[in-house]
Amino acid sequence: MSAQSASLKKVSIIHGPNLNLLGKREPEIYGDKTLEDVNTMLQHIAERHHITLQCFQSNHEGQLIDHIQQDMKDTVGIIINPGGYTHTSIALRDALVVYPNPVVEVHISNIYNREAFRAESLISPVATGTISGFGIDSYRLALLWLINHLENQ
Amino acid sequence: MSAQSASLKKVSIIHGPNLNLLGKREPEIYGDKTLEDVNTMLQHIAERHHITLQCFQSNHEGQLIDHIQQDMKDTVGIIINPGGYTHTSIALRDALVVYPNPVVEVHISNIYNREAFRAESLISPVATGTISGFGIDSYRLALLWLINHLENQ
Amino acid sequence: MSAQSASLKKVSIIHGPNLNLLGKREPEIYGDKTLEDVNTMLQHIAERHHITLQCFQSNHEGQLIDHIQQDMKDTVGIIINPGGYTHTSIALRDALVVYPNPVVEVHISNIYNREAFRAESLISPVATGTISGFGIDSYRLALLWLINHLENQ
Amino acid sequence: MSAQSASLKKVSIIHGPNLNLLGKREPEIYGDKTLEDVNTMLQHIAERHHITLQCFQSNHEGQLIDHIQQDMKDTVGIIINPGGYTHTSIALRDALVVYPNPVVEVHISNIYNREAFRAESLISPVATGTISGFGIDSYRLALLWLINHLENQ
Amino acid sequence: MSAQSASLKKVSIIHGPNLNLLGKREPEIYGDKTLEDVNTMLQHIAERHHITLQCFQSNHEGQLIDHIQQDMKDTVGIIINPGGYTHTSIALRDALVVYPNPVVEVHISNIYNREAFRAESLISPVATGTISGFGIDSYRLALLWLINHLENQ
Amino acid sequence: MSAQSASLKKVSIIHGPNLNLLGKREPEIYGDKTLEDVNTMLQHIAERHHITLQCFQSNHEGQLIDHIQQDMKDTVGIIINPGGYTHTSIALRDALVVYPNPVVEVHISNIYNREAFRAESLISPVATGTISGFGIDSYRLALLWLINHLENQ
Amino acid sequence: MSAQSASLKKVSIIHGPNLNLLGKREPEIYGDKTLEDVNTMLQHIAERHHITLQCFQSNHEGQLIDHIQQDMKDTVGIIINPGGYTHTSIALRDALVVYPNPVVEVHISNIYNREAFRAESLISPVATGTISGFGIDSYRLALLWLINHLENQ
Amino acid sequence: MSAQSASLKKVSIIHGPNLNLLGKREPEIYGDKTLEDVNTMLQHIAERHHITLQCFQSNHEGQLIDHIQQDMKDTVGIIINPGGYTHTSIALRDALVVYPNPVVEVHISNIYNREAFRAESLISPVATGTISGFGIDSYRLALLWLINHLENQ
Amino acid sequence: MSAQSASLKKVSIIHGPNLNLLGKREPEIYGDKTLEDVNTMLQHIAERHHITLQCFQSNHEGQLIDHIQQDMKDTVGIIINPGGYTHTSIALRDALVVYPNPVVEVHISNIYNREAFRAESLISPVATGTISGFGIDSYRLALLWLINHLENQ
Amino acid sequence: MSAQSASLKKVSIIHGPNLNLLGKREPEIYGDKTLEDVNTMLQHIAERHHITLQCFQSNHEGQLIDHIQQDMKDTVGIIINPGGYTHTSIALRDALVVYPNPVVEVHISNIYNREAFRAESLISPVATGTISGFGIDSYRLALLWLINHLENQ
Amino acid sequence: MSAQSASLKKVSIIHGPNLNLLGKREPEIYGDKTLEDVNTMLQHIAERHHITLQCFQSNHEGQLIDHIQQDMKDTVGIIINPGGYTHTSIALRDALVVYPNPVVEVHISNIYNREAFRAESLISPVATGTISGFGIDSYRLALLWLINHLENQ
Amino acid sequence: MSAQSASLKKVSIIHGPNLNLLGKREPEIYGDKTLEDVNTMLQHIAERHHITLQCFQSNHEGQLIDHIQQDMKDTVGIIINPGGYTHTSIALRDALVVYPNPVVEVHISNIYNREAFRAESLISPVATGTISGFGIDSYRLALLWLINHLENQ
Repeated sequence: MSAQSASLKKVSIIHGPNLNLLGKREPEIYGDKTLEDVNTMLQHIAERHHITLQCFQSNHEGQLIDHIQQDMKDTVGIIINPGGYTHTSIALRDALVVYPNPVVEVHISNIYNREAFRAESLISPVATGTISGFGIDSYRLALLWLINHLENQ
Repeated sequence: MSAQSASLKKVSIIHGPNLNLLGKREPEIYGDKTLEDVNTMLQHIAERHHITLQCFQSNHEGQLIDHIQQDMKDTVGIIINPGGYTHTSIALRDALVVYPNPVVEVHISNIYNREAFRAESLISPVATGTISGFGIDSYRLALLWLINHLENQ
Repeated sequence: MSAQSASLKKVSIIHGPNLNLLGKREPEIYGDKTLEDVNTMLQHIAERHHITLQCFQSNHEGQLIDHIQQDMKDTVGIIINPGGYTHTSIALRDALVVYPNPVVEVHISNIYNREAFRAESLISPVATGTISGFGIDSYRLALLWLINHLENQ
Repeated sequence: MSAQSASLKKVSIIHGPNLNLLGKREPEIYGDKTLEDVNTMLQHIAERHHITLQCFQSNHEGQLIDHIQQDMKDTVGIIINPGGYTHTSIALRDALVVYPNPVVEVHISNIYNREAFRAESLISPVATGTISGFGIDSYRLALLWLINHLENQ
Repeated sequence: MSAQSASLKKVSIIHGPNLNLLGKREPEIYGDKTLEDVNTMLQHIAERHHITLQCFQSNHEGQLIDHIQQDMKDTVGIIINPGGYTHTSIALRDALVVYPNPVVEVHISNIYNREAFRAESLISPVATGTISGFGIDSYRLALLWLINHLENQ
Repeated sequence: MSAQSASLKKVSIIHGPNLNLLGKREPEIYGDKTLEDVNTMLQHIAERHHITLQCFQSNHEGQLIDHIQQDMKDTVGIIINPGGYTHTSIALRDALVVYPNPVVEVHISNIYNREAFRAESLISPVATGTISGFGIDSYRLALLWLINHLENQ
Repeated sequence: MSAQSASLKKVSIIHGPNLNLLGKREPEIYGDKTLEDVNTMLQHIAERHHITLQCFQSNHEGQLIDHIQQDMKDTVGIIINPGGYTHTSIALRDALVVYPNPVVEVHISNIYNREAFRAESLISPVATGTISGFGIDSYRLALLWLINHLENQ
Repeated sequence: MSAQSASLKKVSIIHGPNLNLLGKREPEIYGDKTLEDVNTMLQHIAERHHITLQCFQSNHEGQLIDHIQQDMKDTVGIIINPGGYTHTSIALRDALVVYPNPVVEVHISNIYNREAFRAESLISPVATGTISGFGIDSYRLALLWLINHLENQ
Repeated sequence: MSAQSASLKKVSIIHGPNLNLLGKREPEIYGDKTLEDVNTMLQHIAERHHITLQCFQSNHEGQLIDHIQQDMKDTVGIIINPGGYTHTSIALRDALVVYPNPVVEVHISNIYNREAFRAESLISPVATGTISGFGIDSYRLALLWLINHLENQ
Repeated sequence: MSAQSASLKKVSIIHGPNLNLLGKREPEIYGDKTLEDVNTMLQHIAERHHITLQCFQSNHEGQLIDHIQQDMKDTVGIIINPGGYTHTSIALRDALVVYPNPVVEVHISNIYNREAFRAESLISPVATGTISGFGIDSYRLALLWLINHLENQ
Repeated sequence: MSAQSASLKKVSIIHGPNLNLLGKREPEIYGDKTLEDVNTMLQHIAERHHITLQCFQSNHEGQLIDHIQQDMKDTVGIIINPGGYTHTSIALRDALVVYPNPVVEVHISNIYNREAFRAESLISPVATGTISGFGIDSYRLALLWLINHLENQ
Repeated sequence: MSAQSASLKKVSIIHGPNLNLLGKREPEIYGDKTLEDVNTMLQHIAERHHITLQCFQSNHEGQLIDHIQQDMKDTVGIIINPGGYTHTSIALRDALVVYPNPVVEVHISNIYNREAFRAESLISPVATGTISGFGIDSYRLALLWLINHLENQ
């Protein structure tokens, strides 16, 4: 990372379990864009607004928590798609509660019209806001909001 | 309405019950912007993208349904904040199911960390996507997405 | 209304929310006949049995209740498809409880094999009987029963 | 059975447990007509429309299933009052699912305003339609519909 | 309204759906006094204490909400019998939450010993207090309290 | 049956599914007496009080219902151990509801401290009384009560 | 008690567990008036209407039941604040069911907007009416109603 | 108590809350015999079998528990009608669990066909057996069983 | 049966309701093999291992129980597909509990991803093991295990 | 009580229902130490830290509440084992809520691995802390904490 | 791995949390064979059918997901015992949904007759089939089926 | 580790997810002591009693399980604060079930008066005992008990 970027505000993009398969897994639900496509799209937006992105994916609940704890030190916001942990991880929720800056929860699919167990999110109550159902645009909207929020503080 | 705007694509903005009190009601939850402020903000965005907006507020479940049925004839998308009907109106849901274009559900507050009965939305399963918790920015994000979606079709 | 018809027995046909879209909305569930087709079909039957029909549709819970209260004065039976209010309106139920003559609840689709929330009707317990799942024939059977019931009183 | 009737379309009327007591059992709920009265009434209607009826009653879940399986071979529709098995018999439901022609579920009483356990039917979701609450007229309406349906095919 | 009464404190009396049928509907539950009788009784009490009453009845959820929003401008208290909306209307509740002065919820019958769905009120948690089961005296007690409360402020 | 016994009052003893295995099945729960032992014990009591017993066991829900319907014609009371049908058979319950004389429900084991699904009986609400947990003495107590009841009528 | 008062009608005021701490316990919920203040306030009202009051407080469920049973002999009405037993005591409910005169249930706080377990009262279904949320005025309203009711009998 | 009876086996009869009102309270449910009638009836049976009875009634949960603990020292069985505590008292259940001899739970009415909350007994799982629904004969059957059980040990 | 086979170990194959329709009923769920195909396939395996099979199908809950009770006398294991009775028959479960040898529960389809009521089996807790979802191979695996188990005893 | 001890800080030890049977009741769950042993053990600890203990046991919910209310006047902490009232007494909870000093809830057995109804405590939410499962050491730990807490204030 | 085996079809065996303790942990439930014993047994079968096995155990939810994602590239089937994650891991389920080849879920013990929370599997609905309760034979049956399935494709 | 300490008894202290943030995270709930402070405090106690401590923290469910399995080999007790996994991890519970020595579950905050989902612990039923709500003293009490328990064995 260059000295310049080090002085830029950094936003953390966190992708939960199985999102590394994006574009391969159930395309009728998740679309055909890969996770790299998503990150690249977000990087382009970030660059236009002089924001640094830090993109991370893990299938491990513990690594996601470790990562969020690291984010406390140097990021100004988190955009997280908690994947399957959305509905089961109190530990992830507890990690996000401590994070002092905005947290945006995103979902690619509309989690409210799938299996019943996907309709309840343990993360939503502790997120600043939730965006669900717009495909990978869910991420884009989250980043647009976060940038706008940072510029207006 | 001028002849020119008549040929523009029209997006319907629908505000449900009690949203006419925005800015006066529970500002610690809903903020201090009025509904006129919201509509004006959205109009500015729409104008920049050559979109016509049609803003409507009602406390009447039936009028909201009537309005949605009218929207079937001449609008390309609906942004709706169903307010208290979010959790109780199957009739409203049935009206939206028939609407052939995208429907974005927005909420100003984070409905998932308030009373338990606000955590379940009857509308979300039939909406294209849901945006909740960003204050009046929830509307702004919805419109940005809808415009982008229209431009990319 | 002619003097003759004024002396005829009058039956009230009440269509709830979104039924004005019949024939356009989800034809795989509701068929392709319009509400006018239904009313016309019922009028033909009524005429053969020297019965007057009064057909009414509204998306407004309150108007449906107002209408039922008016029916108390001059009708001998109600056939009602409460649409989405079937499952949510205690106020509609309370209005029907007071009605002194037979009430037949009809549903075009089989409400018992759709979303779980459609399987419970607040109206059924206060109706004389319920007919569900025969398409627009549900209305026809209801009227045949009501006419037969009136003739045998 | 004459050679002529053998060539007629046959409709199966199936009465579930305790319906052989009709007219004797709880007349304030079920009326005072006997099962023979019901069958005779239905026979008269069938004759007028050149339809053969096959009436069957059993208190045995297994015999009802056996009978439905036989019906697959030579009947064009089933009218069934599953009695107490309505709410408990998945096996009966499974038998009806396989039946390729229309199935009409009937109930003499309004099952929705009695004990809570009678409000849910395991049969309704797999029936073509359900008619409940019209006394023995529930059967009559079912047969009228089935005949009409057969004539319009 | 005379100039004098205009300067009097005004209390809003709101009657929900089906209460216009009072005295005709289920007298064994609701008694034989009409809504006019109730309003007249309340007017007499109000006059003795130099209070103006504004009585309103509607079967429309939306009109009730509109009315409550108007009450914010010029009334010092609301006495509301929400009728069937007691148990289903979050929108009505949301309207009352904003109202800055005391709200008294009244019920003519004892809602706690009727159908199970009548035992839970969405309105009670946001009312100042609830009075249930005293026939039309429930209104009278509510007004006596409100007057006393106003005089002791 | 002799002419004499034909003129005696007859009590019906009905044993439900798997009770023919009594004494062989789970003796730690049901004891080591066989069903014949039970019937013999009851016969001795009956003889002393000049009562005729009719003992019947079946694993078939339908046969139990058929049998109860026959009992309507010539018995003055039923003692029934519904076995596994206690918790699942609405049809059996419906048959017992029609029976005009006393019905005593008995259970050998204490059904309330076994699997959760055994704690609720569909039969108890329609029985005159229930005796549970006294081993085969449950039958004995039931017969003693019934005889005493008959003698005191 | 003088001979005169002995001939007066007597009303029983019953305060349940922890109400002896009134004025000391959680004043933000229950206010700062003591139980003596409440009783004195009620005595003044009673005297004006020539009614005798009998005030009683106990933390013992059994003493409350004993007391209610005594009240059957010489009182014309009961005003009871069952405190924490409101939600748990079927025995208290059973005692009140037997009482032949009016029973008014009162609560100082609004029990419907506190912990979930306080929203359901076992007493309300067997009371004549319930008054909740008006502070100690809840008692005053109850007594006013009871006196009025006695005078109008 | 004479020296002779002191050497007799003693059975404890325990009547729970409100049973002192027997014969006065809801006779359509509980019959018209008083508690003294019940105790006298039981005494007569006990005497015939050379058993001493100790009859006790209390409305106090704590006194019932104290009493059961005393029974541990000198009684050979308990017959208890726990009244309203049947459904709410874990403390009573805990006291009975420790009692080393047979415990028979009796109910005068059929607790299974009344309010839903009366269908579940906390006492039944720890009783030897339960007898419910035979009026005061429930006590008689319990005592007959207990005597027979003692004689056969 | 020859003298030789009589001395062979016998395994009982039990097919529950509607399985006689195998190959005709919902082939997308159950495949196109008939019940005769299944039995033949199993017979071939049995012969190779010198085991006798006894295959039985019934739609009657009672006959299935009777059959299981017969199996106690001369079979060394049961393979049962309880069909629709899987989820409703406590009586069937009770019969299997008594059976002293291994019981294997099989299902052709994956019962866990169909209607919610098919996900819970009353039989599984009392079976040795459960095999579900492998088409008619579920039977084959069950028999292979049972044979292997018998050979290794 | 001597003058000296009167000046010592006093801690209240409260034992709920059936704890007077400690050492006799279900020793496999509760151990073989008596309540006197427990109190003596605690006294020894208290003496070493110059604390006065006041030990109390009652089977009466009301006496426990009375006692807690007395404790408000002169004790610095409560250690309570609410026994069976843990799960049923809102009145006890309400008494503890008012107590201004620390409250420690203790249980001898592990209440979380017994009957389901023992897993939920109404007391825990209003206690400072809960100690469960260490036998009579649960009391000892509670006292050690309370003493340490008092010394560090 | 030799060049030869590299060309063989590979099946993935996945053991979830705590299965590395097999043979040491609760042998009355899980038996005394170690995980190595299981893998060796499966290897012998695989070799006979010219199949390569890849055995893997982890206590980490994330590693199990990573592993399944790797399996997508080169295996023809998965046999998985998800251990404690069976009932809690939606993320694991999501990983298996994507896997294009057969997935067999196995359990050593009968998960349906243990704690209630073990009766529901999040994995079963997305598995091809489930085998539960046969000890380590559950694995053996799974592999036999998979091999047979591969040979018959 | 010195040779001396190697011969000492070792106790395992396990801190679950997010406890590494102790002192930084929600201090109003968890206090301002860090995890190092906690470990140091515990080390001082251990040293005084010649016990070795092994302190471990991880956000990874799998690492916690791995660690517990290691503890089986050389520790005499576990003190575990499972953090957010308390309520969701059956796998963690399964690991603790196998551990042969005492397990003490501790919670810093009172988990019973926070969100509803924190009131149920999957760990408590398999722990020796639970200590909750005493801040970091919960750990101290746990260690004191464990040491005392070891010394008294």
